[in-house]
Amino acid sequence: MSADAQAARNYPLNCWWVAAFADEVGREPLARWLLDTPVVLYRTEAGEVVALEDRCPHRQAPLSSGKLRGDAIECGYHGFQFGPAGRCLRVPSLPSPPPIAVESYPVQESGPLVWIYLGDRAQLDDVPPPPQMGWMTDPGFAIRKGTMEIAANYLLLKENVLDLTHLGHVHAASFGIMDWVNPPAVTTKGDTVTYRQEFVRSPLPAGYAMALGLEPGTPWNRVGFGTFVSPAAHESGTLFFDPAAPELPAGSNLFAHLTTPIDATHMHYFFVAARDHATDDSAMNQFAAILEAGFREDEEILCKVQALINRTPRRGSQGERSVKADAAGVAARRIVERWMARETIAD
Amino acid sequence: MSADAQAARNYPLNCWWVAAFADEVGREPLARWLLDTPVVLYRTEAGEVVALEDRCPHRQAPLSSGKLRGDAIECGYHGFQFGPAGRCLRVPSLPSPPPIAVESYPVQESGPLVWIYLGDRAQLDDVPPPPQMGWMTDPGFAIRKGTMEIAANYLLLKENVLDLTHLGHVHAASFGIMDWVNPPAVTTKGDTVTYRQEFVRSPLPAGYAMALGLEPGTPWNRVGFGTFVSPAAHESGTLFFDPAAPELPAGSNLFAHLTTPIDATHMHYFFVAARDHATDDSAMNQFAAILEAGFREDEEILCKVQALINRTPRRGSQGERSVKADAAGVAARRIVERWMARETIAD
Amino acid sequence: MSADAQAARNYPLNCWWVAAFADEVGREPLARWLLDTPVVLYRTEAGEVVALEDRCPHRQAPLSSGKLRGDAIECGYHGFQFGPAGRCLRVPSLPSPPPIAVESYPVQESGPLVWIYLGDRAQLDDVPPPPQMGWMTDPGFAIRKGTMEIAANYLLLKENVLDLTHLGHVHAASFGIMDWVNPPAVTTKGDTVTYRQEFVRSPLPAGYAMALGLEPGTPWNRVGFGTFVSPAAHESGTLFFDPAAPELPAGSNLFAHLTTPIDATHMHYFFVAARDHATDDSAMNQFAAILEAGFREDEEILCKVQALINRTPRRGSQGERSVKADAAGVAARRIVERWMARETIAD
Repeated sequence: MSADAQAARNYPLNCWWVAAFADEVGREPLARWLLDTPVVLYRTEAGEVVALEDRCPHRQAPLSSGKLRGDAIECGYHGFQFGPAGRCLRVPSLPSPPPIAVESYPVQESGPLVWIYLGDRAQLDDVPPPPQMGWMTDPGFAIRKGTMEIAANYLLLKENVLDLTHLGHVHAASFGIMDWVNPPAVTTKGDTVTYRQEFVRSPLPAGYAMALGLEPGTPWNRVGFGTFVSPAAHESGTLFFDPAAPELPAGSNLFAHLTTPIDATHMHYFFVAARDHATDDSAMNQFAAILEAGFREDEEILCKVQALINRTPRRGSQGERSVKADAAGVAARRIVERWMARETIAD
Repeated sequence: MSADAQAARNYPLNCWWVAAFADEVGREPLARWLLDTPVVLYRTEAGEVVALEDRCPHRQAPLSSGKLRGDAIECGYHGFQFGPAGRCLRVPSLPSPPPIAVESYPVQESGPLVWIYLGDRAQLDDVPPPPQMGWMTDPGFAIRKGTMEIAANYLLLKENVLDLTHLGHVHAASFGIMDWVNPPAVTTKGDTVTYRQEFVRSPLPAGYAMALGLEPGTPWNRVGFGTFVSPAAHESGTLFFDPAAPELPAGSNLFAHLTTPIDATHMHYFFVAARDHATDDSAMNQFAAILEAGFREDEEILCKVQALINRTPRRGSQGERSVKADAAGVAARRIVERWMARETIAD
Repeated sequence: MSADAQAARNYPLNCWWVAAFADEVGREPLARWLLDTPVVLYRTEAGEVVALEDRCPHRQAPLSSGKLRGDAIECGYHGFQFGPAGRCLRVPSLPSPPPIAVESYPVQESGPLVWIYLGDRAQLDDVPPPPQMGWMTDPGFAIRKGTMEIAANYLLLKENVLDLTHLGHVHAASFGIMDWVNPPAVTTKGDTVTYRQEFVRSPLPAGYAMALGLEPGTPWNRVGFGTFVSPAAHESGTLFFDPAAPELPAGSNLFAHLTTPIDATHMHYFFVAARDHATDDSAMNQFAAILEAGFREDEEILCKVQALINRTPRRGSQGERSVKADAAGVAARRIVERWMARETIAD
């Protein structure tokens, strides 16, 4: 990482981040920049995920330029082979392999996600494990997922999903949720921050209503909530209540917004969406199409913000001004700073 | 503006510059970078031009990502609204607007041009007003205009229009003016510099001749002249004289070359051309087509010059060498330096 | 050259480099960046090659934007003319030319190659002349050649051709030479380094065999060799021997790999290939097609290496690790360092 990149870094290294969806990783090398680091991902013949530094220490070719040989990856330039632990296993021109290696990174596969740890190994035990989101594998839910590479800093998306007052402006045409106007209640607890918004007998947007088998605009109750789980993960959802039977939710939507920095101005965005109603394929496909449209709207505005930041310092002539609706986003920034401060102290 | 951009700045801030043609500004936000500053332009319902800093102070989205609400502009991200004076008028999640604002810039609409002042407000009274070019609205003239974004520093185009010995080389195929060979007379007066070139019984290039109803090559008299009016504006023209009746011009062409820096290596170029003869649409369309072709030739050579400057320092192994034909261009550089020095003293 | 480019420079200036193939240079100006310098090449009416700094000292336009006027080149902007020695011969607006000039660079045409010297003139006599490769004009050989602009530092290609253990990995599909596995014998002699590899009764790859009129896989003897001749030139070849008559080669392939830095991350690559058997057009076209395919494979991997270097420092987390097969490449780096050190001492 260059000195500039280091100075611009606003993400913790000692954190589990999502590297890929599990079904993206197989027996073809998958090259991906994560936290300013070139990484190659693949599976062993037994199906275990391997993550290595994607740079051969011999002459700097990406290992991903090559191919798998059993559980090893063979560089595409001179055929050096490295095993899952990163150790060089074979150099074709030598009788036995030299004592060289690439970095090997801890990974954890959990449901549809592959998590990676690119930080200081000595501190791994002190780092919170990848957050568990059991609903992703709960048979009561149908899920859809997707990934985008976005030309914006990852924190811009964190702030985006922590302040949903943008719904009526960015997503009027897609989600059609026009009643998210008031600042939600915000609760900070340790290194998490949660918002919660209640809607009482509020007309249901068309997408919500159809999935519940109701007429668009039917006045129902809802609770919207979302939690900054870690710098890598945001979890959110909506619970729907029939005002005539408000004890138990009549349906739930759940989301994970997972962001992994590529560098200071780019991120990988992985999203997972689930619901426990209207779970048939046709309805889910419609759901996925609306989500895709909406997340492209987020991408468009975030890229515009990043482009402006790239051309001018973030704080313009009038500084940056937060309002009450930013409470969760501002708390999230402080949490990220605490994650990063812990690294500094440990150094 | 970054420190690098600041160091590279070779234009005065305390100066009126052209922001747009009047007919480019309407009820859709127009985003434009001017003097390293993001600006959004629009008209109020009453038709007044508004120019605001194109960056919401909340989360740095461009205001131009949004839409107009009456006389206000609403940010496309969270719906913050700002009025023509830049003051925040509404935040959807708040009962009353917070005391935040964006910069609002003075503008003046004059004929086909919208001028903008992005400099120090305290010094506005001491800055020369936008130059008046009454011929642009004189019913005796037909006009054509156009605009280009050129990947070159604005001063390169100033120098281009102040030394027309390039005509026979850059524009041989378009304008066909091959007799502009000698250095013209140059007169400096305060912060303006003017060149003047007389042609006596010189064969008329085809374009000139046709507009005057003459055979190409008819030997006529002409006077070519041009003035550096301000760092933003250059005015020029040609008067045509029948050698048999040389008291009054038989026809006049007038031009304005208006350049506004985007950044150190890009400019907006606005040109206005007029003549008092051959003013019918068909003849003017032909005129406009030749101008467009010629100005694209200028763009091509200026982009090549800028590309060379971008890769190597401006002064090559042999330095930069001016000749007599550069007298006006060199004087113009000194005038720009004086404009900039006045800012420094005032700081 | 900027300070950054200077710092990144890893090529000697005081060295003859290939500027172009002879048949690329004619009566149209050829613009080419060589050693971070803009150069324009053309031929006089008598056919002599001229190389000038491609930047008019008047207003920094590339001279290559213009056209030839006899033996002079005329700038496309204001028509300044410069002769083969770089001296200004004409300024259209002046009665006699001013004492200005552009740099003129020594060139030598030799067979299909045009060599250029962009270094210190005072040291020219002490610099080794362009290497002679007489086979390029030997009527006993048929030749093919080609050129590519590659987005990689020139030394990456030097290293590539000095370590042919990449053959079986990068070129398995094109050249099909799978038996270049052992490190070759390496001999350093002054400022050259040579590798030599012998193959005894080794099955001939299809391309080799066909050209020799043999069945693919026929066990024959071969000697592969290659020499770092100068920072600009690498010469290599293969001799084929019938094991039944091993006194004299039954055929020879010869190659020149000529690399000229454009800047720190780009090079011109000129290659010349020759053989003394299967020299008919049809066979040579097939040969050329295989070479082109193979050299594109080199380009692909070198661009990947350079891209990785551009994003991260060359030495990754594990440093750079050389093995025995790199002996020639490592020696070549030291030779380049000696060439550069001689410049420094002379300064």
